[in-house]
Parts: sequence; structure tokens; C-alpha cells
Amino acid sequence: MVVKVYGPFYASPKRVLVCLVEKEIEFETSPIDLFKGEHKDPEFLKLQPFGQVPVIQDGDYTLYESRAIMRYYAEKFKSQGTELLGKTIEERGLVEQWLEVEAQRFHHPVYKLVVHILLASALGFPSDPKIIQESEAKLGSLADLSHLPFSQHLVADLGKEHMIRDRKHVSAWWDDISNRPSWKKVLQLGVFELPK
Amino acid sequence: MVVKVYGPFYASPKRVLVCLVEKEIEFETSPIDLFKGEHKDPEFLKLQPFGQVPVIQDGDYTLYESRAIMRYYAEKFKSQGTELLGKTIEERGLVEQWLEVEAQRFHHPVYKLVVHILLASALGFPSDPKIIQESEAKLGSLADLSHLPFSQHLVADLGKEHMIRDRKHVSAWWDDISNRPSWKKVLQLGVFELPK
Repeated sequence: MVVKVYGPFYASPKRVLVCLVEKEIEFETSPIDLFKGEHKDPEFLKLQPFGQVPVIQDGDYTLYESRAIMRYYAEKFKSQGTELLGKTIEERGLVEQWLEVEAQRFHHPVYKLVVHILLASALGFPSDPKIIQESEAKLGSLADLSHLPFSQHLVADLGKEHMIRDRKHVSAWWDDISNRPSWKKVLQLGVFELPK
Repeated sequence: MVVKVYGPFYASPKRVLVCLVEKEIEFETSPIDLFKGEHKDPEFLKLQPFGQVPVIQDGDYTLYESRAIMRYYAEKFKSQGTELLGKTIEERGLVEQWLEVEAQRFHHPVYKLVVHILLASALGFPSDPKIIQESEAKLGSLADLSHLPFSQHLVADLGKEHMIRDRKHVSAWWDDISNRPSWKKVLQLGVFELPK
């Protein structure tokens, strides 16, 4: 059974894709165009009632929320591919701690930067310099796979690479993690294009 | 070994406490007064570098982020007390999905309501009616243990009980979950008092 991943060109689904590649799990992708509102189609809302990507289908099992999907496959294929959950319950506790730090402290300010720098004009609202400034100030700590997709925006599209390069250890971490073959493979799958 | 939980009077640590009670795990609490800035004391920052509660100490194991701590004890004591993670990997996937929905979609707007309705004057900044209105509009979906602490604020302190009572199924869910003996026990442990 091949896993089907909806919305591969956007950042949060890329969390799932990089996890599937690290775990050597076969998948296929199904594009969803957020700019055309395909995530609000009634058929899609049957899969994901909040109208967001990613969602996966694996046989008759449907799951959403990128970090929940990562945990599911990391556990289901524990002994295949890269070990992602730690070797003991205590190690897994620390993995979960840092995944929460990513989800709670890193994701929200970067998400706001993506919306206000990259997407605002395409989505038809003015970007807010105060939100950009506040969000940039909140970003201090980084860690694992789950950081990759939005860090990629930070480095590639938002003109904020200095936030990583100005911090010696963060910069070394970024070189390390962003050069993983799994991430390069995910990037080759493509990213979304802004509507013209 | 008794688990030590820092910051028991605040909402996020109560997620951990209700989980420990459901899992029948012995614990003791160590108060941290956020209004006195005790979470920024150098000794506390050694335990939790972001200066936030909760943190637990269990022998020489230290862990923070409330949902990571919940997962750790739910897994470590899988066969003791209430089953919290589901019986199969697929059920756990769904538990994780809804825990993410709570963390990503429920927590942030309720947290803003707590800050802008309950804490603003105590913390010395003006509450923002626009944020209150936007946050109230975002709150639609609720689920499990992890929702209890901030829902409790919604019902008890924020004058927003109608948001739960106006929705028949949510209201029945709230009666069900908030009447669990574990939650009543946690509330008896006390809540913070606003500085006068």
C-alpha cells in the first residue's frame, strides 16, 4: 500500500515527506492548490474538516496534522530507515520536548513571517511590518526534521538567512540538516508557485 | 521516586497533573510565582531555558513542554491507570491528531483570551478588544484531557461559558470531561491568584 500525501508543494506537508523519505516508505503525492481554494472543496473537507494540508491516506486510514503523521510513521516503521524517536522512553520524551518547542515557539513566528512577507500580496492583504518585527524577535531556538520546511522559507524566500547565519551553532546545524539526502529529495518534488 | 511538578497553579502544568492523576502516578508540586518573575530566576532557567512552566523532575530526568510530559508518562505507564494513547498504532495516530488540533487550533486563541481578559491589567498592559474578538471567532472545536486547563478558564474566569453552552455536543463533552475525578482533584490543588 502506497501512502498518498495531499498538498506536497507547501511547507507543512514537507514535514511528512521528509519523514517518509527518512523512513524509506513509498508514497505518492496529490497536489492541492491553496491559491485556487482547493483545500475548501467539499470533497477535500471530507478528508480534512479544517480545510488544511497535509492529509494522508493509507488504505482506508486517513490522518491529518503533520506532526501526528510523522509520529505515526516513525512508530509504525520503528526499525526501518532512520531512527527518529530515540532508543528509550526517556530519549523519546526529549524528542517530543523539542518537537513541542518547534511547534509552539518556532512555528508560529515563522508562519507569520511567511504569511506577511511571502504571501500577503498574493492573498490580497497588506503585510504588517509590526508583526514581521515581533515575529523575527521571537525566533531564537531551532532543532530537528520538523524545522526544515519553514526554515527553508526563512533562508530561501524571506530574505532572513542572516537569522541563521548570524548564529554559529544554528548555522552549522542548518548546513547539517538541510544537506540530508532526504531533504534534497523532498525539495526536488517541487514547491508552490505564487499566483501571478 | 516521586515526580516533582513545577508551577501547579497555572493552566499548562495542570495538563500534566491531570495526566498523572489518571495514570495513578505519585507526584509532589513546587510552586513558581510567575507574577513575581520566579520563572526567570537563574536556578529555574537551568531547568527550563525558556523560563516557562511546567517542568518535571523525576530522579535525574528533567522534561518540559506539557504535552511532551503527558506523552512520556502515558507511554511509560501504559498499563497503569486510564489508557490514554489508544490500543493500536492507528488509534494512537488519531489521539496524536487531536492533541495537535488542541495544541495548534484551540490553545492559541484561548491563551490570547486568558492574556487579554484575565491577565492584562495584572501584567500592566491594555487588553486588546480586537484580539479578544478574533480569538473568540477562532474557537470552534474541542476534544480531550489536554483541553481541560484552558477550557476551565473559559468557563470559570473569562465570562465565555456561553461559547461552550451554546454548542449542545461541546456542552455535553465539557460536562463529561470536567466531571472526571482526576480534574476535580487537580482543581483542589489550587489555582494562581492575581496580584492585588
